Amino acid sequence: MAEIIHRVGIAGSASEIYKALITDEGLSRWWTADTSGAGDVGSIIKFRFDGGGPDFEVVERKADSIVRWKHCGEMPGPWIGTEVSFQLRSEGGQTYVLFAHSNWKEPSDFMAHCSTKWAVFLVSLKEAIETGKGKPFPDDIHIDHDV
Amino acid sequence: MAEIIHRVGIAGSASEIYKALITDEGLSRWWTADTSGAGDVGSIIKFRFDGGGPDFEVVERKADSIVRWKHCGEMPGPWIGTEVSFQLRSEGGQTYVLFAHSNWKEPSDFMAHCSTKWAVFLVSLKEAIETGKGKPFPDDIHIDHDV
Repeated sequence: MAEIIHRVGIAGSASEIYKALITDEGLSRWWTADTSGAGDVGSIIKFRFDGGGPDFEVVERKADSIVRWKHCGEMPGPWIGTEVSFQLRSEGGQTYVLFAHSNWKEPSDFMAHCSTKWAVFLVSLKEAIETGKGKPFPDDIHIDHDV
Repeated sequence: MAEIIHRVGIAGSASEIYKALITDEGLSRWWTADTSGAGDVGSIIKFRFDGGGPDFEVVERKADSIVRWKHCGEMPGPWIGTEVSFQLRSEGGQTYVLFAHSNWKEPSDFMAHCSTKWAVFLVSLKEAIETGKGKPFPDDIHIDHDV
């Protein structure tokens, strides 16, 4: 199994970052403006990018500490069976977000693309918290001229 | 062994991207302004960030196609034994850079930090080629308030 991992240190509290991971409004500020369904464990979040996009079921939530999703639905294909987690850890004046997108069957060009794109969106999360303005889709930084 | 992979699609030729990977001047435009020693296979490139930083030996170079480095020296510790590669592939109007930082002994918080930071620098490479101005150290985007 292959895995994408990232870490960003954000000048903000674990509590405000946690909120940006568990509500439609919060997720819309940094990943995609078209987010719906976020809620308690068992809820299914629909992230849409120009109509299409992944669904994730919330499988774990611990206030100000961890959020874990399991991919559900059929697209994108290589994401089937994968999980995403965000762990929060405050240290000094910042909160680290430890991110993982796990259980990829194998590394691929598409996984490499997603790795870079997750980094771009995590920097967007950081900016959303620190400056009030992230870069969610459709205002995201493009890393592929065909997508 | 753990691995970081990334991919960016750049509106530029493989030839100009290759040049940004094999010369001090090119590398200084997107990774760190303090780069010296780049040259043929066997040369050792010193990348410096406020004085310290890694050395890499060039172990493979194929024009407009691949560049591969092997870490040498003692720092940062977790990079000992690791390799970095850039594969270039032109497709349509863009050139993909497939990046890998391989042979990490194990995943870690530091590896997660490096994964995000490599993405930031690969976007810097993209901007250097597409707009003429990247964000190499010391003008890089910070992702940790302690570093």
